[in-house]
Amino acid sequence: MEAKRSLLAIFLLLSFLSISTAAPTRKTRTRKPCKSTVFYFHDIIYNGHNAKNATSAIVGSPQWGNKTILTGQNHFGDLVVFDDPITLDNNLHSKPVGRAQGFYIYDKKDIFTAWLGFSFVFNSTQHKGSINFAGADPLMNKTRDISVIGGTGDFFMARGVATLMTDAFEGEAYFRLRTDINLYECW
Amino acid sequence: MEAKRSLLAIFLLLSFLSISTAAPTRKTRTRKPCKSTVFYFHDIIYNGHNAKNATSAIVGSPQWGNKTILTGQNHFGDLVVFDDPITLDNNLHSKPVGRAQGFYIYDKKDIFTAWLGFSFVFNSTQHKGSINFAGADPLMNKTRDISVIGGTGDFFMARGVATLMTDAFEGEAYFRLRTDINLYECW
Amino acid sequence: MEAKRSLLAIFLLLSFLSISTAAPTRKTRTRKPCKSTVFYFHDIIYNGHNAKNATSAIVGSPQWGNKTILTGQNHFGDLVVFDDPITLDNNLHSKPVGRAQGFYIYDKKDIFTAWLGFSFVFNSTQHKGSINFAGADPLMNKTRDISVIGGTGDFFMARGVATLMTDAFEGEAYFRLRTDINLYECW
Repeated sequence: MEAKRSLLAIFLLLSFLSISTAAPTRKTRTRKPCKSTVFYFHDIIYNGHNAKNATSAIVGSPQWGNKTILTGQNHFGDLVVFDDPITLDNNLHSKPVGRAQGFYIYDKKDIFTAWLGFSFVFNSTQHKGSINFAGADPLMNKTRDISVIGGTGDFFMARGVATLMTDAFEGEAYFRLRTDINLYECW
Repeated sequence: MEAKRSLLAIFLLLSFLSISTAAPTRKTRTRKPCKSTVFYFHDIIYNGHNAKNATSAIVGSPQWGNKTILTGQNHFGDLVVFDDPITLDNNLHSKPVGRAQGFYIYDKKDIFTAWLGFSFVFNSTQHKGSINFAGADPLMNKTRDISVIGGTGDFFMARGVATLMTDAFEGEAYFRLRTDINLYECW
Repeated sequence: MEAKRSLLAIFLLLSFLSISTAAPTRKTRTRKPCKSTVFYFHDIIYNGHNAKNATSAIVGSPQWGNKTILTGQNHFGDLVVFDDPITLDNNLHSKPVGRAQGFYIYDKKDIFTAWLGFSFVFNSTQHKGSINFAGADPLMNKTRDISVIGGTGDFFMARGVATLMTDAFEGEAYFRLRTDINLYECW
């Protein structure tokens, strides 16, 4: 009788545990971010006259393009290298907390769309390390999602999604991107 | 006596559970894809005369190259930006289900080899979101594996391997790549 | 009495298991690499006169640059495509075990910094497959961490961190990078 009761207890326990043992793995797959941060970065493209202030430059262009004026047809084919200041708020003149470094290529004739490969590079008391990004940026959409493909230092082995929003856009001269980073893999 | 029997049961249970608790983590490492799909994309390179039909253009080239003719030495150094239609079958004229957007760089003098960074961008009733790819494409091989480095929307946090196969190749004018995507991390 | 004793045993077991069931997931997050390797790769940039030995070439440059001389301002804006031999030791003339293929872009005016997108491509008896890398390379630092964003073949689904060290640097003519690869996700 006691043995039967304790066997029953074991079976209940077994049922309970088989659920709880499955849980940890599922938990790592939850869509709740393990880390969320917001940054802004600021891009001033070189136009032949602003070498002092420019943070980016055209370094590749199609046959019909040149290196100081973004081409027609939605800049299709222009490759731009950048080293943009990262700030915590949307003020270009705030103290930078890091640099956004990499490139974008305008890759569509009909509308503005670009492909991005870049890193956020931090070296301050607050953050050390880098976050690496890649993905398509259909920049006329209000929000665009790209991938966090890796990280180092404080962001060791990070993976996630970054949502880009154009926070300001002054013709060809200046744009500011709000970047909401949500990491779903943290180490 | 009953106590001994139930303790035996507990030890058997323990042995069983210690195996089953290890299993979930291993399971996430199986090489069985959690999602498999096949797409085709179609690339028509700009040659100076086909602006209307072209889906890609040379935007970088070595000293000895130019922007309308792929260079000798297996196109070493040519950087091409593309916005190619994606179809479900191998017919260029099938209704596109998305766009393959990004770049490739021919990076070897002896044979045709390229490095790819691009995205599949979907915005239809069937698929929304993007898949991001990077990797080496030794394009004379029958099949080539590149990495799925991330995804957004329907492909949130995807990781996997994409196998490229040249399905058609018409000189410098047109090529079609079959892309077998196997995801091993799905969320 | 026996039933009480066995129930106590079950509770002890339960406490023990609830710890051990949590363990497997944490274990996959340990910072102990599942694979570590060291490689060297060697870059000789094309300068207009060394076509035979060069392993890389400038294919994009800012307005003020050209394709045979790295520009001033810390080469800001120069895009270089490479196909560099990989060796197991730091001797350029050792038998290559693979090729490092991809690109780097110098992306800062004040100091030497580049953004890298490339692959190690192996096709020998020892290694088959590829490792894909991306990240920022502030190359004046003694060590720099970039991300392993994926892999194929022997390196199927790899993720990790690669530490770059400039092992030799001969002006603009030649550099050698030591690459310590630590994978934290192996399949």
